Amino acid sequence: MTALTYRAAGVDPLRAEQLLQAARPFFQATQHAGVRHLPAFAGLLELPAALCEASSTADRPLLVASCDGVGTKVRLAQAARQLEVIGRDAVVVNLNDLAVVGAQPLFFLDYLAAARLDPSGLLPLFSGMSAICRQVGCPLLGGETAELPGTVTPGALDVVGFAVGWTRSSRVPVRRAARVGDVILGLPASGLHANGYSLVRRVLQQRHLAPSLRVPGTEQTLQDALLTPVPLYLDAACELLARHPPPLTRALAAVTGGGLLGRAGMLVEPDAGLCAQIDPSALPTVPVLALLAEAGPIAFDELARTFHLGIGFLALLDADAARAEQRRPGSPWRTIGTLRAASRVAAIGSILHD
Amino acid sequence: MTALTYRAAGVDPLRAEQLLQAARPFFQATQHAGVRHLPAFAGLLELPAALCEASSTADRPLLVASCDGVGTKVRLAQAARQLEVIGRDAVVVNLNDLAVVGAQPLFFLDYLAAARLDPSGLLPLFSGMSAICRQVGCPLLGGETAELPGTVTPGALDVVGFAVGWTRSSRVPVRRAARVGDVILGLPASGLHANGYSLVRRVLQQRHLAPSLRVPGTEQTLQDALLTPVPLYLDAACELLARHPPPLTRALAAVTGGGLLGRAGMLVEPDAGLCAQIDPSALPTVPVLALLAEAGPIAFDELARTFHLGIGFLALLDADAARAEQRRPGSPWRTIGTLRAASRVAAIGSILHD
Repeated sequence: MTALTYRAAGVDPLRAEQLLQAARPFFQATQHAGVRHLPAFAGLLELPAALCEASSTADRPLLVASCDGVGTKVRLAQAARQLEVIGRDAVVVNLNDLAVVGAQPLFFLDYLAAARLDPSGLLPLFSGMSAICRQVGCPLLGGETAELPGTVTPGALDVVGFAVGWTRSSRVPVRRAARVGDVILGLPASGLHANGYSLVRRVLQQRHLAPSLRVPGTEQTLQDALLTPVPLYLDAACELLARHPPPLTRALAAVTGGGLLGRAGMLVEPDAGLCAQIDPSALPTVPVLALLAEAGPIAFDELARTFHLGIGFLALLDADAARAEQRRPGSPWRTIGTLRAASRVAAIGSILHD
Repeated sequence: MTALTYRAAGVDPLRAEQLLQAARPFFQATQHAGVRHLPAFAGLLELPAALCEASSTADRPLLVASCDGVGTKVRLAQAARQLEVIGRDAVVVNLNDLAVVGAQPLFFLDYLAAARLDPSGLLPLFSGMSAICRQVGCPLLGGETAELPGTVTPGALDVVGFAVGWTRSSRVPVRRAARVGDVILGLPASGLHANGYSLVRRVLQQRHLAPSLRVPGTEQTLQDALLTPVPLYLDAACELLARHPPPLTRALAAVTGGGLLGRAGMLVEPDAGLCAQIDPSALPTVPVLALLAEAGPIAFDELARTFHLGIGFLALLDADAARAEQRRPGSPWRTIGTLRAASRVAAIGSILHD
């Protein structure tokens, strides 16, 4: 059997990367002095003085925004009639992106697109969004619902979230302080989160895996494993930042598009000569991923660029701070790697990421 | 020939309305004391005190967010290789929505979805976004680009924008101050803006109208008319609010989904016994709409619920303030109707909107 890839399943992360690189000058042309920086296109905006006369410029409030969707995990949830998890995920993936700069959520908006809306069928989606928004005190401030016949495939549904939060300069990790010997910590993932599902669906279809199949080594069916909600990492990230204030915390990253390898590469600045080296033996086993990898088959290289490999959120810390964190009773963070000098930005064992 | 409708073209605004009504309790469950109000699901959020200690509570800064897409106008722009206008429109429709509460833009994010991304083909889209963002001083802060095979139709492209802005309580129109005799002002539209294009495309296909057809009474081709950029109403709206501060200005509305009739209905509170009565003879002629209406044919009732009818932005003002505005040399606003007592929220001539 030929090994399956994300690209063969119709999704080529290189195309998105090429597009972002080509579009960068157009983004940069719109920046002004109040925009702090743009790592991976996630910008921070100083709150204009007109809104906030009293704040010192040293630790001015910053607004931060995230936009992310749930991709084709929606198709599996529709088939299983479990749209509630999709509503929850649409919020959580965006809050996790706010968490990388220690931001507290201010509000959330949703965008839904379908060829034809099914009002009653979509209510579980809103129920899922509402429950998690209420839990974290993030109002659902609005959104848009579009019927786009001819643009969205009949029966399909695109679910996208948009979250805005706020932070302060003092809480934003300082990536340029990274140096050889810094330690990479990770938080455990659950299920497969919300990335790589076009590849997942391709495996299910081509290898005729039934949703009711029990995942070896677990009590879960394949369907339940694949529809596990994305964990919310917001509190863990903010608490870590409070205990190890930047620049002790160099960088945080939610493991989404690009997989663990791609996201580990965002912990360091490009061309800094630093490599986030992850130890494969430190990664938890992910039974559902093992099942899919064997059935595909999917090569480890491809898994590393597409899925979270059991780690859903990353932190890069000063080595002493990381040791202190590991000694702290009850810390949810585990050590999964270190920073070394190399021309590649990330590596998992011998799998390299430029 | 049977008359064409938006519904027959695959888009039923009633479904979206039903969904929003059903979802409302889920939205409301997430609100807190800092959320000001939710007319038509566009919320305002008081800037938390932690961000802004010095402001008086009387005129505290408010954050406001908008999410809107360009719909299937994209398909026509793709065929004409004119994606720049789509990038511009994606920004403008959102800034026009911020304008209804007198908000200045803070930043913009984009969301693109395709079955397969075409990096070089999409650059004009970013160029269009960038140019208008630079012009209004609104940084492009980030966004998301998704390849969704199986969700988006091959060759199609979904383009959605998110804009965040800020305003003050004193600049937010006071809809509950509306009373019989208030005057409805309008700003001229151009082209067909970015709503109703599924119906437009159905007419073009069924009646075999060529893009190169000259629109009677104009020098424009059908293609050029349909790909005219949406005008930016932000300055005109903010200047009107400055000259006639709320509560003299009761309400503002951009004419988007729901057409002129639907949006006129948003000028008054539901169940207030007030009706926005628009005088059809005060509406400009829209040659491209006349062409489509005849070719369809499309009934006037359907046009009124789907298209802007020549008026792209609405204001409801105290009668004396409106008269003063109309006497002001160079005012871009024209009088198009008045508020009367009735159980319907809006009417254009004898066409009613509940």
